[in-house]
Amino acid sequence: MNILEIIAKKRDKKELSKEEINYFVTNYTNGNIADYQASALIMAIYINGMSKEEITNLTLAMAYSGEVLDLSEFGIVVDKHSTGGIGDKVTLILAPIIASLGIPIAKMSGRGLGYTGGTIDKIESIPGYQTNIDIKTFKENVKKLGVSLIGQTLNLAPADKKIYALRDATATTESIPLISSSIMSKKIAAGANKIVLDVTCGSGAFMKKLDDAVKLAETMKNIGKLAEKETVCVITSMEEPLGEAVGNSLEVIEAIDALNGKMKEDVKQVVLTLGAYMIKLAGKGEDIEENKQKMLEQIQTGKALAKFKELVQNQNGDISYIDNPNLFKKAKYILPVVSDKTGYIKKLDAKMVGEISVALGAGRIKKEDKIDEAVGIILKKKIGDKVKVGDILGYIHANDYTKGKCAVSDLVDCYEISSELVQKPQCILKEM
Amino acid sequence: MNILEIIAKKRDKKELSKEEINYFVTNYTNGNIADYQASALIMAIYINGMSKEEITNLTLAMAYSGEVLDLSEFGIVVDKHSTGGIGDKVTLILAPIIASLGIPIAKMSGRGLGYTGGTIDKIESIPGYQTNIDIKTFKENVKKLGVSLIGQTLNLAPADKKIYALRDATATTESIPLISSSIMSKKIAAGANKIVLDVTCGSGAFMKKLDDAVKLAETMKNIGKLAEKETVCVITSMEEPLGEAVGNSLEVIEAIDALNGKMKEDVKQVVLTLGAYMIKLAGKGEDIEENKQKMLEQIQTGKALAKFKELVQNQNGDISYIDNPNLFKKAKYILPVVSDKTGYIKKLDAKMVGEISVALGAGRIKKEDKIDEAVGIILKKKIGDKVKVGDILGYIHANDYTKGKCAVSDLVDCYEISSELVQKPQCILKEM
Repeated sequence: MNILEIIAKKRDKKELSKEEINYFVTNYTNGNIADYQASALIMAIYINGMSKEEITNLTLAMAYSGEVLDLSEFGIVVDKHSTGGIGDKVTLILAPIIASLGIPIAKMSGRGLGYTGGTIDKIESIPGYQTNIDIKTFKENVKKLGVSLIGQTLNLAPADKKIYALRDATATTESIPLISSSIMSKKIAAGANKIVLDVTCGSGAFMKKLDDAVKLAETMKNIGKLAEKETVCVITSMEEPLGEAVGNSLEVIEAIDALNGKMKEDVKQVVLTLGAYMIKLAGKGEDIEENKQKMLEQIQTGKALAKFKELVQNQNGDISYIDNPNLFKKAKYILPVVSDKTGYIKKLDAKMVGEISVALGAGRIKKEDKIDEAVGIILKKKIGDKVKVGDILGYIHANDYTKGKCAVSDLVDCYEISSELVQKPQCILKEM
Repeated sequence: MNILEIIAKKRDKKELSKEEINYFVTNYTNGNIADYQASALIMAIYINGMSKEEITNLTLAMAYSGEVLDLSEFGIVVDKHSTGGIGDKVTLILAPIIASLGIPIAKMSGRGLGYTGGTIDKIESIPGYQTNIDIKTFKENVKKLGVSLIGQTLNLAPADKKIYALRDATATTESIPLISSSIMSKKIAAGANKIVLDVTCGSGAFMKKLDDAVKLAETMKNIGKLAEKETVCVITSMEEPLGEAVGNSLEVIEAIDALNGKMKEDVKQVVLTLGAYMIKLAGKGEDIEENKQKMLEQIQTGKALAKFKELVQNQNGDISYIDNPNLFKKAKYILPVVSDKTGYIKKLDAKMVGEISVALGAGRIKKEDKIDEAVGIILKKKIGDKVKVGDILGYIHANDYTKGKCAVSDLVDCYEISSELVQKPQCILKEM
């Protein structure tokens, strides 16, 4: 077996064997295969596609290319993952709700890059909260509280990291076999045995069209099936940002509000739907609607918030911030964004909002960039809402006045206002 | 314009503009585009193809990526090039014949790599012959004698060199757009304004099937047309080696024999056909059959041999070797290869013969390898010939006894002998 034969096979649209895929992944990870050979193969995969078996074999080879977290002592562990969105604070709300129902949550989350934020950056805005925790302590936390939320302290799926970086530099990102194997390899390496995927769709997501999102979801469900990691996909809309806050501490505050029972309708639908499937996969409730009711009860009785406080306290976070979110350090400038039109919000471009947030300092362009926890955007009007000239569309939270003014003007451009009535969009596009 | 957009365009099967192709070639040659980006683009070109315009633009961009030889002072210069074969001593015979007809030959030839030999390695087996000559002297030679044959002393088409090396390491060699642009870019950089191409076809050639050879020829003719370098292609058979000698000094001796009027039938057909088109392109004779007669006359009258001696002497070669080819240093062992079957030669695998020749030391595996001028193979029986058990099929010329014995046994395996009558194969498959 050699890399030239493997490249030639995929170039000629033939199916690669499990051994060939393993050979490529192992030898690319350890540096025996050059980047220029890997990129030729990846372009051939992009153009010629992969069969279900090939995608699963690629996923497993990448999943086992580095350390793999063993969570077997906790029985069924259901992981939740989003393919990326703007204002996505779902994990912060969902993890304590599910844990409060006695279902273990042992989650390694990522940091943000580009216009998509990361849960770990968000939760670190709670002073003291430790995300860099060793695996032994992480597991002890889960044993003790039923929940722990940490950064990626293991070298999970290094092959995926290397291939992802190469795809980024060779125009081969938007490929369903490559996207699906990348996501699933990380989930498998992170120890999940059941997976609920939030497949985002729309202007702020990787998948712009529902058809593509469905294809991606089908592919990932199939990997889950072949890899014996039962997977449910919920396709959610990412035409506009989720909820009202975009930014790190701003989103944590929105999550705390949600756990206090004040949850925006779109956030609520996404949280409840994803959570209901997590409960189902954990074997704790067959009926999705009943599961949603159980989740709402955990909020109403204060049990979800209490679990969140336990989680934060246990990882050295200052829970006075949860009791009193006003303690979060505010940005220097809070600038209103005012509508210059009357009508109905027809569009609110999620990707552009994400980019404004990055420009304010809430996100990273390069991995090494530092983020500013306080800055971001609060959206007071969303698609379907009625506005008049002079109404507040939202607020920019900025620590730099020039950047803030720039963001105000950019945010106006994110909105498209129509004179005709606009329906509130659907949040949940498909459950599969 | 950036490389990611260019890769994405070709990935999506769109046509690249002249500017985009120039951008890629320039920036890859100067190191601004990484190998892994170039290989992704090249794989996309391999799979999705290129239009005639794209191929021509790629050819011209590569041709002008380095130095370009200016031969305009000589008027019409017709270059001859072979896409590669085994036992191909055609240039050594053709150059003096054509030059003796008053048509200038100013030729930079290559060295051998892999199972294909190179004219420069062959002619260097004449003691003293200088191939490393500066351009000024090269042109003076052509002015004085009407012929010079040197190595590549200019940095011709460096983009092609870099892309060719990358293709070799990424399973993207066998692509008609890439092969044709590679060949034509070198010819254009070498100063030709008219080109006769020997497109080889068969087991010892790049193109195994006539259909593919025709496609390659059509593509190169079309580049010639668009680039205003009139091009004629002669498709010749490379199922078996050309002539009887394979090896460096052995082929020079066969060439001297040919110029003395003892030319093997297959060599004669290829030499006369290619030469007749060179004469036609040079405007010195419209009728192909008449041109062939003129060439034969140059041999019969000794004018071609005299021109060869002038060429060799002028480049410091020892012409006593041409008068008396027995002076060429012989290999230590000349081992007969004997037939163990009776019947008709059905196959004589050209590529395998080329590989035996490399194993004996007549060729290079890596660029840095030294070659042994004396070793090689003499083929006494060729396709269609009748043989009996015990007949000599050929001779191995070796300087290492073990390698020689090995070659003897390998050469037997190159032959397939059938009990049924076999027709002598056609040498010239198509003229276009």
